[in-house]
Amino acid sequence: MVILGIDPGFATIGFGVINSDKGKVTAIDYGTVTTKKEQNFPQRLLTIEQGIMQLIEKFKPDQIAIEELFFNTNITTGINVAHARGVILLVCERECPGRLYEYTPLQIKQALTGYGRADKIQMMNMVKTFLRLDKIPRPDDAADALAVALCHAQTNRLGGLFKI
Amino acid sequence: MVILGIDPGFATIGFGVINSDKGKVTAIDYGTVTTKKEQNFPQRLLTIEQGIMQLIEKFKPDQIAIEELFFNTNITTGINVAHARGVILLVCERECPGRLYEYTPLQIKQALTGYGRADKIQMMNMVKTFLRLDKIPRPDDAADALAVALCHAQTNRLGGLFKI
Repeated sequence: MVILGIDPGFATIGFGVINSDKGKVTAIDYGTVTTKKEQNFPQRLLTIEQGIMQLIEKFKPDQIAIEELFFNTNITTGINVAHARGVILLVCERECPGRLYEYTPLQIKQALTGYGRADKIQMMNMVKTFLRLDKIPRPDDAADALAVALCHAQTNRLGGLFKI
Repeated sequence: MVILGIDPGFATIGFGVINSDKGKVTAIDYGTVTTKKEQNFPQRLLTIEQGIMQLIEKFKPDQIAIEELFFNTNITTGINVAHARGVILLVCERECPGRLYEYTPLQIKQALTGYGRADKIQMMNMVKTFLRLDKIPRPDDAADALAVALCHAQTNRLGGLFKI
C-alpha cells in the first residue's frame, strides 16, 4: 500500500511517500512543494493546489495521511497555514475521495517513539531507522511528512484508523 | 461593474452580488452557500469549492471582495473557517485571476457608516439604505456579504483598492 504523508504549510509543504507491505515499510520518495513569497497569497494557494495534484498523479497513493494543525504563538502564520491546509484537504478529497486520514503531533510521536513528548532529533532518528535510510531526510518538512506516513502505516497495521 | 461580496465560513458562506455604476449601487442577488454537518470536513470543503464556482459561473463578477479573517475566542471554529477561506480564495483566484480584494471588518464598517465601531444593526440598516431594499437582507451572512461588496464599490469609487 502506498501512503502519502503531508506536513502542511504555506511556504513549504513537506511530502513523504512510503510503501507499507505486511508491516514492512520502505521509502519511495520525499521532498517539498514550495511557494514563492513574491506571489500574492491566492496565487500561492493555486501553486499548492497544483503541487498536491501532481504528487497524487505521480505516486497514486492508496491512502493519504496529514498532520493536524495546532496553533502556536504566531497567529498570522497559523491562519495562513490553515488557509493552505484547507486547500490541501480539498485536493486530497477531490482526487482521492475517502482516503484521507489525519493525526495530531502527539499521535505521530507516540506511533514512532512510544512517547508523546519525543523531541525532534528522536523523531528524525526513528524516521531514518524505520525506513533504513543512510541519513536523516532533509529538509525537516520532508522528514515530518515521512513521520506522518509512518504513523499511518503503524496505526493501520494495528487496526485503528483516525479518519477525518 | 458586477461585484461579488463573500462572507467566509465553513457551515454558512454569505454571498452578495451588486452592480456598481458611476457611484450608483443596486442589489442583483444575495444568499448563502451552506454545508451539512453530516458531511466530513474535507467533503464540506468540496461543497464550498463547487458552491463558489457556481456563483462565479452564474454572476460572472468583474471583481470579488472578501472579508478578512479575525480570530475570536473559539480557536477551533477559527481554524475551520480559515480552512474554508483558503478554499474560497483558491477558487476565486483560479476562476477570476487578479480580481480578488480583501477588507478588514474595520474597513467595511468605516466604508458603510464612517465609523469603525458601528454595531451590527447600524451596518444592516446601511446595507438596506444603500441598496434601497424594502427590508434588511437575511440571513446575516448574506447581509455581511453585501456589506463587503458595498465597501469595495465605495473604496473603488474613491480610487483606493486593497488588493490581496
